[in-house]
Amino acid sequence: MNFQQKLNKIIDKNNSLLCIGLDTDKSKIPQYLLETKDPVFEFNKTIIDNTHELACSYKLNIAYYSAEGLKGLESLIKTITYVHDRYPDIPVILDAKRADIGSTSQQYAKEVFDLLNSDAVTVNPYFGLDSIQPFLEYKDKGIIILCKTSNPGAYEFQDLLVDNEPLYIKVAKKIIEWNKKYQNCLMVVGATWPEELGKIRKIASDMFFLVPGIGTQGGHLEKTLKFGLTKDKNGLIIHVGRAIIYAGKDKDFTEKVKEQAQKYKNEINKYRI
Amino acid sequence: MNFQQKLNKIIDKNNSLLCIGLDTDKSKIPQYLLETKDPVFEFNKTIIDNTHELACSYKLNIAYYSAEGLKGLESLIKTITYVHDRYPDIPVILDAKRADIGSTSQQYAKEVFDLLNSDAVTVNPYFGLDSIQPFLEYKDKGIIILCKTSNPGAYEFQDLLVDNEPLYIKVAKKIIEWNKKYQNCLMVVGATWPEELGKIRKIASDMFFLVPGIGTQGGHLEKTLKFGLTKDKNGLIIHVGRAIIYAGKDKDFTEKVKEQAQKYKNEINKYRI
Repeated sequence: MNFQQKLNKIIDKNNSLLCIGLDTDKSKIPQYLLETKDPVFEFNKTIIDNTHELACSYKLNIAYYSAEGLKGLESLIKTITYVHDRYPDIPVILDAKRADIGSTSQQYAKEVFDLLNSDAVTVNPYFGLDSIQPFLEYKDKGIIILCKTSNPGAYEFQDLLVDNEPLYIKVAKKIIEWNKKYQNCLMVVGATWPEELGKIRKIASDMFFLVPGIGTQGGHLEKTLKFGLTKDKNGLIIHVGRAIIYAGKDKDFTEKVKEQAQKYKNEINKYRI
Repeated sequence: MNFQQKLNKIIDKNNSLLCIGLDTDKSKIPQYLLETKDPVFEFNKTIIDNTHELACSYKLNIAYYSAEGLKGLESLIKTITYVHDRYPDIPVILDAKRADIGSTSQQYAKEVFDLLNSDAVTVNPYFGLDSIQPFLEYKDKGIIILCKTSNPGAYEFQDLLVDNEPLYIKVAKKIIEWNKKYQNCLMVVGATWPEELGKIRKIASDMFFLVPGIGTQGGHLEKTLKFGLTKDKNGLIIHVGRAIIYAGKDKDFTEKVKEQAQKYKNEINKYRI
């Protein structure tokens, strides 16, 4: 089963397009968990155990783990392993924004897939296709390529006009082309740019978009769904991180996280009827 | 002392623009080193001990270390620490091609500077300035931003015309602007594109370029130096990796590495008179 099939299956099973972001910052973890041996893993595990019926995927940004050194990477590996063992239906996305010349990208692909065992990875398109090819060769994995990012400065290069269309449209067209071989490409389109998301949906009618920017970043959920859903009300992985995982500060955090995840799941589903 | 000062000082002291790439692939290490406890570190250490008077910097691509897991990262940390302790004049560049939204880039900056203790890092410009800002705030470090990369597919997006000039020129102009605050920016320009390198030199007359692509990748050394050197015959960090570090396969590798490094150093200096 490849990534897209795995994703579609869990979307159906859990009736959810919600992707929960486990970008765990140790300084924001409830106090009582800090006494455990691996607070970051315990935090993640608690969230996963309480939301596995509400999400279509988990996304871990490797930056938050690498910044804690080898201990952080151990927490990352434990978390990914936990999801695979306990909830094998749910794909794990590793948000790593990797890319380099081909021979180096090969090493990154080895890191994220063979070693860290993620189901999908985010990659940066700036180098061009040969930098992405080593990832694409992992046919059953999801290769999620940056198109229009959610940050305020995304316009700086991504909106530059090339032949009267913005660069992000050129990138989207390339991703559509690269997807033809193994149907294992997705793209990142920020919820902070719903009109642009709509433009990309027009040319990529049935591809999956990973959509960050909802929650703390202030992206517009209604517009995102209105402009971004495919004809069969699918095709979006709506990422929410901080607004869910830091919903509670004490032992009540378990309940608050569940509540927030349920709220986002329902909010999204309102527009899928 | 900031990165550029440190770099200029060692360029003068060693009379070299050569940057040696320690992108160590365990499968290519001489057999006799495989019996040691940490073959990757021993390999790096041997190269460093034999070339520290010939190079202006060492560059470690983190992909090669991450692909070996926690053990690989330990070798990386040991290597960086070894250079700092033993040869403190020589800057260490961590080639990581990082970038993400601001809050995440902050975590990457923490990883590469606070934790791994590199003197400089490579970053990807696709997200725009706000993704690079957290790196730039480390005033004394070198922030080396991708401009025109050395891989064959670099033309795919980087050469697209925006207002009648290629995207990489737009990126170069932004890097020049970003450099004004702390003078801590450099850019990556591949030796595989010497004419393009010349165009960038025309608008960035005194900035440092990190130049990969010489050696195995087939970049043109003479043209690179002719088009890329600043007026005072400086401004380039010429990276050579595989062509030096895998020069020998057995115990003679120490001598062969030294020979190759000396050869590249001299070859480069021919054009600096």
